[in-house]
Amino acid sequence: MDLCIRAIETLLTMDDTSGAGRLGVRRGVAVAVRDGRVAWIGPDAEAPAADNEIDASGCLVLPGLVDCHTHAVWAGSRAGEFEQRLAGADYTAILEAGGGILSTVRATRSASDQRLRTLAVERLRAMAARGTTTVEVKSGYGLDPETEVRILRVAREAAAEVGLTVRTTFLGAHAVPAEWRPDRAGYVAHVLADQLPLAAAHADFVDVYVDRGAFTVEEGETILRAGAAAGLDLRIHAEQVAHTGAAAMAARLGALSCDHLEQLDAEGIEAMARHGTIAVLLPGAMLYLKDPPPPVAALREAGVPLAVATDLNPGSSPVGDLWTCATLACVTMGLTVEEALLGVTAVAADALALPQHGRLREGGPADLVVVRPPPGEQAHAAALVQFLGGAQPVATIARGVQIA
Amino acid sequence: MDLCIRAIETLLTMDDTSGAGRLGVRRGVAVAVRDGRVAWIGPDAEAPAADNEIDASGCLVLPGLVDCHTHAVWAGSRAGEFEQRLAGADYTAILEAGGGILSTVRATRSASDQRLRTLAVERLRAMAARGTTTVEVKSGYGLDPETEVRILRVAREAAAEVGLTVRTTFLGAHAVPAEWRPDRAGYVAHVLADQLPLAAAHADFVDVYVDRGAFTVEEGETILRAGAAAGLDLRIHAEQVAHTGAAAMAARLGALSCDHLEQLDAEGIEAMARHGTIAVLLPGAMLYLKDPPPPVAALREAGVPLAVATDLNPGSSPVGDLWTCATLACVTMGLTVEEALLGVTAVAADALALPQHGRLREGGPADLVVVRPPPGEQAHAAALVQFLGGAQPVATIARGVQIA
Repeated sequence: MDLCIRAIETLLTMDDTSGAGRLGVRRGVAVAVRDGRVAWIGPDAEAPAADNEIDASGCLVLPGLVDCHTHAVWAGSRAGEFEQRLAGADYTAILEAGGGILSTVRATRSASDQRLRTLAVERLRAMAARGTTTVEVKSGYGLDPETEVRILRVAREAAAEVGLTVRTTFLGAHAVPAEWRPDRAGYVAHVLADQLPLAAAHADFVDVYVDRGAFTVEEGETILRAGAAAGLDLRIHAEQVAHTGAAAMAARLGALSCDHLEQLDAEGIEAMARHGTIAVLLPGAMLYLKDPPPPVAALREAGVPLAVATDLNPGSSPVGDLWTCATLACVTMGLTVEEALLGVTAVAADALALPQHGRLREGGPADLVVVRPPPGEQAHAAALVQFLGGAQPVATIARGVQIA
Repeated sequence: MDLCIRAIETLLTMDDTSGAGRLGVRRGVAVAVRDGRVAWIGPDAEAPAADNEIDASGCLVLPGLVDCHTHAVWAGSRAGEFEQRLAGADYTAILEAGGGILSTVRATRSASDQRLRTLAVERLRAMAARGTTTVEVKSGYGLDPETEVRILRVAREAAAEVGLTVRTTFLGAHAVPAEWRPDRAGYVAHVLADQLPLAAAHADFVDVYVDRGAFTVEEGETILRAGAAAGLDLRIHAEQVAHTGAAAMAARLGALSCDHLEQLDAEGIEAMARHGTIAVLLPGAMLYLKDPPPPVAALREAGVPLAVATDLNPGSSPVGDLWTCATLACVTMGLTVEEALLGVTAVAADALALPQHGRLREGGPADLVVVRPPPGEQAHAAALVQFLGGAQPVATIARGVQIA
């Protein structure tokens, strides 16, 4: 074996086929890795010999976390805008002064490939240090053909450099850029004709931001259908600011996930349940934007799977730590501990169409994180979520290699 | 010099006497340390020779953070209770099954001195790693004379072991323990007669939890007056669950701080302003308990100084990271960046009657933290607060010694 994680106090496989509950709790075990895959899971006393060993005494081991909604490639800073808004500045005035998302678009367009990549690598490294091994990254800060493609390319390159599995999403319909402001219909046509054909080669998914003040359900449907025709799987930013019916539309089109969902109604829930659409909950954005919680109880009752992601971005969700988001999902949205932990592992992987990720089983990818619980706590799943930012990752393994 | 922090991109002295604003912003400077004190602050090019140097290129340097409200000494776990509540268990049923604060009291009473100290050291080390150099620790998980004294003693020993400045607070009136449950008046008499005389030798402050379901304003006043007579300065948990008038009472008695304050009214604000009482805001508890925000705008207008603390405890605020609390204070309570940063440094130090702490000036204690901003951000105060948990402390110096 290449590597063996020994003396694991608590293993959470997130593999509900193991007969050990949805979290797949096993105690006193070891995990052996060969050629980047989990080769063996069993009692620690029977652990096979390996070239390298990690002692996980007192720790939990989980699948590497899966962050299924991020905007991790951007340049520029919104810290000044954050400060001004807290000091009472009017957001419309900030927008008119060139702030908000379009300032990130300007900075991203003017950043070199090298600069964008350096920034992305630093952000992904910080995420890996907290236990993330798979990440989704969206474009949407370019809003022109060249920059949209650059973002997608940089996302793949940066993830490869850090050692993460990455899935990229084309989000040309994230906002209407300044040069198209007077002509949103023209911009949608530009996305379809000039961005999508180039971006499709660098993306796994297509996404669109449908909401009050963003794109309409009709525009969203047109773009998603075109993305599907170009071979991309679908996802959507839906029902965040206002109820629009976007989630039901995307579910009917077979989207993998609908994300945000604070304003989701019963019809949307029913459509998501019927079509097997995953709900991606984004507690960072809910916190920073003071949104109401999404209808978690109704989603649960309808059987809609719940994923949790950081939505890492410099405006509405400056949060890169998926553990913190798991805790916020419990405290502010009402997820159970089990739902939150599945939401950042197995369900998040399903949302990225990566059914082997986010769970640990023999033959699957050797992506895992060794975590120490907070001081005085047992190696118990709840202890990882109870303390905000309190989980202490001590090793992150991606494809069998320790990357943090 | 013993130590020189060189090439500091941005120094925040938090010293408003320097003429550089309330944050005391200086750029391109160095800080030299001798005998545990700040010996020199000036342009980097003129930095004196020193035995050790730290390169702070690209970083900010601030005073070591001051956490002015914690319950950091406890044993036992409430993770199971956290999980049960999220799964829908009734809190009253959890209390009747022996859960809640009284489970922490039982576990703390039965823990050995060595165990309590080990746990406290681990928690304080984690706080030091995040930049905290001064901490307040309350008793209140003993609720009997012996254990209350043990907690206060352990707090001082653990802080000394980690290298932190500590102030301890006797909080015998934190809850009514099980054995006194039928006789709250008897318990108050016991606190006064049997706990306070012993605890006073190990404490700097006396505190009481006045609220619906806890102690009355009259009981609180009796205990605070007795504490003052025993030589302790006063602080109070006030106006968290219900408006009681506790803050106004404590302000009139000359309390250093009133803490929580979600239900504070205009009379309480006026009393605090008149008596110079500091408001200690606890955004962790607000988040976990889903409390409304305290009246920050009215406190600000009245000129009440605002401090921010973690309230670290295993029940209502399992949060040990003061940076996270500074961000939450901005996002959920509406503090400005300047208020949040002063609230975890200079104002927090004032709340502990430590006027030399929480700011950097020649002759003051050499407690400081070197912090890297998040990826891509400038060394700007706002960047430390914008990203939840995003500040990256790279060195914590306490009394001139690097402790993390």
